[in-house]
Formats: sequence, structure tokens, C-alpha cells
Amino acid sequence: MLERLFEPRRVAVIGASGRPGQVGTEVVRSLLAGGRPISVVHPREKTVLGVGVTENIEDLPGDVDLAVVALSAGTAEEACVRAARRGVPFIVPVAGGFSETGETGRALERSLVNAVRAAGGRVLGPNTVGLWVPGRGGVDTLFVQHERELISHRGCVAFVSQSGSVGVEALGAAAVTGYGLRAFVSLGNKADLDESDFVAHFGDDPGCRGIALYLESFRDGRRFLDVAGAVSRKKPVVILKAGATRAGAGAVASHTGALSGSPLVAEGAFRQARILSVDGDEALLDGAKALALCPAPAGPRAAFLTPAGGYGVLAADAIESSEGELCLARLSEDCRRRLREASFPYAAVNNPVDLTASATSAMMVEALRILVADPGVDLVLCAAFLAPPGMSPDLVPGIAEVARSAKKPVLVLAMFGHETQALCKRFTDVGVAAFPSLARAVCAARLLVRRGKCFSGPADIKYGAPECG
Amino acid sequence: MLERLFEPRRVAVIGASGRPGQVGTEVVRSLLAGGRPISVVHPREKTVLGVGVTENIEDLPGDVDLAVVALSAGTAEEACVRAARRGVPFIVPVAGGFSETGETGRALERSLVNAVRAAGGRVLGPNTVGLWVPGRGGVDTLFVQHERELISHRGCVAFVSQSGSVGVEALGAAAVTGYGLRAFVSLGNKADLDESDFVAHFGDDPGCRGIALYLESFRDGRRFLDVAGAVSRKKPVVILKAGATRAGAGAVASHTGALSGSPLVAEGAFRQARILSVDGDEALLDGAKALALCPAPAGPRAAFLTPAGGYGVLAADAIESSEGELCLARLSEDCRRRLREASFPYAAVNNPVDLTASATSAMMVEALRILVADPGVDLVLCAAFLAPPGMSPDLVPGIAEVARSAKKPVLVLAMFGHETQALCKRFTDVGVAAFPSLARAVCAARLLVRRGKCFSGPADIKYGAPECG
Repeated sequence: MLERLFEPRRVAVIGASGRPGQVGTEVVRSLLAGGRPISVVHPREKTVLGVGVTENIEDLPGDVDLAVVALSAGTAEEACVRAARRGVPFIVPVAGGFSETGETGRALERSLVNAVRAAGGRVLGPNTVGLWVPGRGGVDTLFVQHERELISHRGCVAFVSQSGSVGVEALGAAAVTGYGLRAFVSLGNKADLDESDFVAHFGDDPGCRGIALYLESFRDGRRFLDVAGAVSRKKPVVILKAGATRAGAGAVASHTGALSGSPLVAEGAFRQARILSVDGDEALLDGAKALALCPAPAGPRAAFLTPAGGYGVLAADAIESSEGELCLARLSEDCRRRLREASFPYAAVNNPVDLTASATSAMMVEALRILVADPGVDLVLCAAFLAPPGMSPDLVPGIAEVARSAKKPVLVLAMFGHETQALCKRFTDVGVAAFPSLARAVCAARLLVRRGKCFSGPADIKYGAPECG
Repeated sequence: MLERLFEPRRVAVIGASGRPGQVGTEVVRSLLAGGRPISVVHPREKTVLGVGVTENIEDLPGDVDLAVVALSAGTAEEACVRAARRGVPFIVPVAGGFSETGETGRALERSLVNAVRAAGGRVLGPNTVGLWVPGRGGVDTLFVQHERELISHRGCVAFVSQSGSVGVEALGAAAVTGYGLRAFVSLGNKADLDESDFVAHFGDDPGCRGIALYLESFRDGRRFLDVAGAVSRKKPVVILKAGATRAGAGAVASHTGALSGSPLVAEGAFRQARILSVDGDEALLDGAKALALCPAPAGPRAAFLTPAGGYGVLAADAIESSEGELCLARLSEDCRRRLREASFPYAAVNNPVDLTASATSAMMVEALRILVADPGVDLVLCAAFLAPPGMSPDLVPGIAEVARSAKKPVLVLAMFGHETQALCKRFTDVGVAAFPSLARAVCAARLLVRRGKCFSGPADIKYGAPECG
């Protein structure tokens, strides 16, 4: 149903003046970078950023599938309705000043949506920063700064955010360590199209392998659980439900005017529907990245491979403190013998596996291969540090080759001083889930295990012992 | 007692061949960058990296205060003892192969230390990457890659790490967002000088405003608690005690051959001694940075200031989920009136304070000033995003001016896509504690409140209600 929103034949921008910084102008700038055919509507300008201008909405070409309306709340409705009457199926009024400001704005919003729907159109927003499909030819209507250069190819995570700023800031933070983004949608006030519509869309999108949601409220909680619960059988759905505390719910009310709902009810309902709930913006995007790039593990037994013993200790602590979600795998005798053969007499081949600072890239890759092959290991966390003298950039393709052919998750903790983010990005760009800190890598691993548990028994089953194997 | 270790008149490197990658050569390279006078001892080479070589240890000049011995475990003892007999007060054998490898190595280590001490010297190590005092003329013996360019000035956090790799990797990760480092010490096997010696030293160092410790074991737990407990009355002592879980303790045993000790006993003893315990490498260095740059807050009442409502919601959730360590401050009527006057009619002036994406840098700074002045606010978290169109780089000096003159902590959450780290560093470089994610900023704020509580009543007092004001 939303195909033409994400793959519009042509996009019209209504109300772009060409003045730098003006919202409509910035929409045109982003669209030009994306490369979709565009039209601009303005009553007086002749060209905007080199694009010839159409004076009347009624004169737009017939292949416009998406119209971005960059007019203030008071004047947007007329333009939206005229575009819908012209046959444009999707209308995006970007302005604020609607339901988030109170009763008057709410009435304005209701009137706009009703009129557009009566004319056969659908509305994304209002009060939205728009949508973005990365890569060549992708539609990009975001008028705020976003990391178009870092996220230059289409990936497989769909990110749907009620808040434009959380969406864009969180994406920016994620992009620096590499992020495969299928699409980003800012829901805004979701007066018409809402979270359920987009979850359903991405559920059916074969190019999408995971859905990340930032939500402050639900337009229709029952429908959301039905839709997301059904989608979560096919692909992971991760949610950051902001306003989960009493104070947060109060902040939601002043931010969007919406009711946040009861956190306890939500948490239980999420678990029933196999929707994975996280508690921070970083955890949301890290988790979705890991879920999109890794298979779900069969269990919680984690191996940790490192050239730095100290990080082995910290990883063991973090794994054992994971509320039972992870445990240190007990390696088989055969596995330990092979690890020893592949490294040094003084390497620690119990789990965590510490090859010491004398390890080479080749040893790390071989040890990873051995760990992945141990049937007692459900997932592997691998510390990729380039500082030890035996390490070389070969480590990246070496680990990637093992990780991509493994039937279990391989997560990488990549650290290399000021080149840490670039190193993470190199891994992510070749399809390996890499993170710049132990805490973030372990957090992502825990989410993978939760996903795996969704399909191994009742949704709320708990593993018993904190150590197992 | 350790002054001459950190301010040596001259440093000798024993066993540097000049071959790139060889440990001794890399020590010389680091020392040359630091700028201290150095001497090199080698039986055959004539110059090493341009430094004239002395053939015999006995011919070293009389002002050598520190000798780095880059020889293998089997041959280090003789050189160490000869240097001590020559009158060098501090000897740093860098090689591994001592007590961390088992009984033979332990005997070797004991023999080395006993002989050096008998000759009047003290030993840092063995099995250490050395020490580093950043800035012009600072001593730098680290032979592994470290962020000398990013940490180019002397700051006020002393970082003492049992593990060289955790120390260097964690410092590298911290450096990218700015880090004021007084000194870094890798304890290695701490066969002679140990954690207590360095805590005592930095306790007396007026240039040090906070001490961060990564420890896997204690050489003398009783003495450590006495020393660190006394120092913690003057300045904050933060500890990451690795091996706190059963699995972690096992990893400590294979990493260093040491006993990790009981985590429960340690945790209780830390609290008694007002030593602040954290659970990750990032939390350790972030926490020490915040403690060194901010005054301790009088209580847990936090205000959050943001131009992005979504982050206000997330912050409210994070503050209310902080196990009572933080709570959302209730702003006074006067404060809210002034915030409204300084911003917009539609800004949210309850806490969290959301000035909306229309906020300007000047409004943010003025609102920060107003929040700091509210007697019901104990600390302020300020979201510094440069993406909104009204924001300009002026935000950094503006916030810094308010933060530095405030008698309460101001912590900054700085985000700006791929320029996030650079933005954090700009804040940190002017003395403002800035962090690149909400989770990290809140974690640092919680540690500040714990520090404040150390001096407001019995060490283990708990605040009652999660919301207060």
C-alpha cells in the first residue's frame, strides 16, 4: 500500500522559495541529492535550486506520487487538499503547530486529514521531518542535517521514529560506526498513517530484515500489537517506547500532547507479541543492526575471543551480569586443543579465549573459526583491536568471511583509538555487526539471544543457571 | 615518593636496538616525542633514532631517574640490578613472562624485585606498558599506540590500570571526546609498586583532581582501603574492579595468575571507604572526567534542557530509572516564568525543559543560566545539538561560561552526527564534561550524585522517593 510513498515516480515540493535554510528549499536540496524526479510549486519564483517552478498545483505532472507541503499550519490544508485532488496519493505536511500545540491545532489537523482523505490521499505527519531511503535514486525529503554521506547505500534496517530529532540524532550517532539503513520515516503527529501502517509495510518488504521503532504513544495500541506481532514472526521488531516511566510519560504529554499509556501493560504485551523492547536510543539502533546482520542464536552460550586479557575479564563480568540472558560457553576439549594449536602455549583457551598481545590477525581469524564450529557455542563476541603489533587490516575481511558463513552470530567489538569508528564502519560495511565499546556489543548480543528465545519456547521462558554449557 | 618517576630528570632505555617495532625502540620513540632527556644503552648499536648509545649501564649519567628495561624475562634482572646499583631510583622492566605465566616466572619476578630493592631501587611492573604524562616535556614510555595527539595537554585525571591493553584502549576511546589526563600508569604485575602507592601519590598531587583505577586484584587489600579511603576525602577515587563475577574472577586467574577476591566484600568495603565503584571501562573514564571537571552536587535533583522534545522524554525515563540516584527536579514558579520569557510561549518549561527545534544558541545559554540559579536544582544536563537551524558554534563558549561559574554540575550531551566526537572534545577542552550519548551522560551524572552523597551523611544512606523536589 505504501510502495509509491517509498518509490515515488515523482516528488512535488509545495512552498519552496529557494531561500537557503527555508524548509521547502532544504527539502528540494535533499531530493536533488537523492536523485528522484521532482517538481516545485511556488506562486512567484521561477526556479528553485535550478528546478523549474510550477505556479499551480493543478498543473503538476500526472506522475507525482508524493507531495511535500512546506507551508505553515494555517495555510497547509488548502495545498494538501489541492494536491490530493490532483491525484497525488501521499501528502506530507511538514509544519508544526497542529495537535502538539493544543485544541486549536488538533482541530486544524483533523480538518486537514479529513479533507485529504476525502480527496483520496493519505497523510504522513503533520509535524514530520519526512522520510529518507538511502542510496542512488532513493527519495530523501529530510530538511534537517542527516548523514547522507555515511549512509550512502541502502541497507536492511527500517527505522520508524515518532520524533524527528531523536530519529535524526540517533541515526547520526549510529552512522559513524556504519549503518545499513533501508529507510527512515519520521511519523510526526501521525494523524493518518501511523506506526502500524509502516510496520506492516516493512514486514512485507523483502529488502527489510529488521524494524526499529521509536514511539512515545500508540495511535491504536490493539492494532499495533496485532500487526507488529504478526510481522515479528517473519523479522525482528525492536521498540524503544519512550515515556515508560511516570516522569517520561509526563514529558510525552508536553512533547506531543499524547497519552503514553501504561508501561507495565506495554512491556507484557510486547513480550507476548515477541516485540523486543529496549531502553535507549543507542540500544535501539545497535540492536536492530545486530538483528539485521546476524542469525538468531540457538541459545545464550557466548564465547569471547580477545588479544587483550583485560577485556576478557571485563567481558566475562558483563556476560555473567546479563540477568541470565547470556552465559559463558564451556568450550569442548577438542575446541580448546585446536585453539592451543592455532595460537601459543601460553594463550588462555578457556572461555574467554585470550590469545595475548602477541596474537596475529591470522591467529584471531583461525580461533574465531574454531569457536564458531564448537557446538557448545551459540554466539561469539570477538575483540578486534588493531593496536597489537601482529594485527593487520586483513583482520577485517578475515573475520567477515568467518562471520558471514557462520550459522550463528558473530559480533565484533572494534577499538583502535581515534580510528575506532572507522574500523567499526569497515566491519559493518562488509556485513559484520561491529560496535565501538564492550557495553554496546554485549547489549546487542543480549537482544539477539532474546530474539532467539522468541522461537525456542514460550515467550517468557527464562534460562535457569547463569552459567551453563 | 614517586615524584622522580613522573618527573625524571633523565630516562634511560636499556635494550633498544633501533629496529622498528622492537619494544625498546618504540619506548625511545615515545620518549623523544615527550621531550625528556634520554639515554640509550645497547652493547652494539651506536645510535638509536638519532640518540647516541651508551655501551654499559655503569656509564650512564648520574641524573637518570628512570630506567626502562626492554629485555626478555630471562635477561632483565641483571640489567635492572645494575641500573639500580648505578643509582637509578625507578626501574621499569616491560617484558612479560613473569608471575603471570606460573611458578617459574613468579620466582624470576621475586628474585628481580628483591635484588633491585636491595640495591635501593623500586620497580614498576614487570609486564607493563609503562607510564605516560601528557603534554610538553612529559615522560612517555608507552610502546603501544596511544592517542598522543588527542591528549596533547596535561589534564587532571590520573588513570592507573593493572591491564595495559584495557588502559590504552579505554584511553583511546575516551580521548576522541576529549580527555584531560594527568598521567597514565600501567601497573603490570605490580611486584613492587602497586595501586596503593600510586593512589597515595596522586592523592598528594595538587594537579590531580580525580583518580580512575582499573584493577583485577589487590596486592594488599587492607592497605588499599586505608590509602584510598583517606585520599577519597580529598578527591574522588573511581574503581573498575574487574573479576567482580565468578566468571570474571576465573578470567582474572588465567590473565594475571592473581586472586580476584570476593566481589561482595569489595563492594561493601568500597562504599565504606567512599570509593566509587563502576561496572565498565567507559563508565570508569567518563565518571572520572565528570568528577574532575564538576563540583559534587548537593543532591539528586536533575534538570534536563533540550531543543529536542524526544530527548527530553528519554532523559526523563533515564533519570526516573536511575535506581533513585537521580530524580527530576521540580522547577520553581519563578524559574519557569523566566524560562518562558527567555524562550517561546510554546516551549515546555516544566522539567525536562524543551525549547523546541526553534531554539537559538542564545536561548539555550540563557535557559541554562536560569536553571542553574534555581535552588531546587542540584545539577543540570544540557543537550547541545547543533542541527537545529538556530544553533551556532557559539553554543560551546556560551555553555562553558555558565558551566564553569556554576557551583553545581553542568553535564553536556553533545550530538552532531559525524561531528559528535569533535563537538564533545570542544566542550571538554574548555573544561565542560561532555558526552556523546544520553546513556553516558546520565551514567556520569549518577556517579557525581554518589560522590555528593559521600559527604552528606552516612556512606550508605539512600534517598527515599524516586521523585522529589
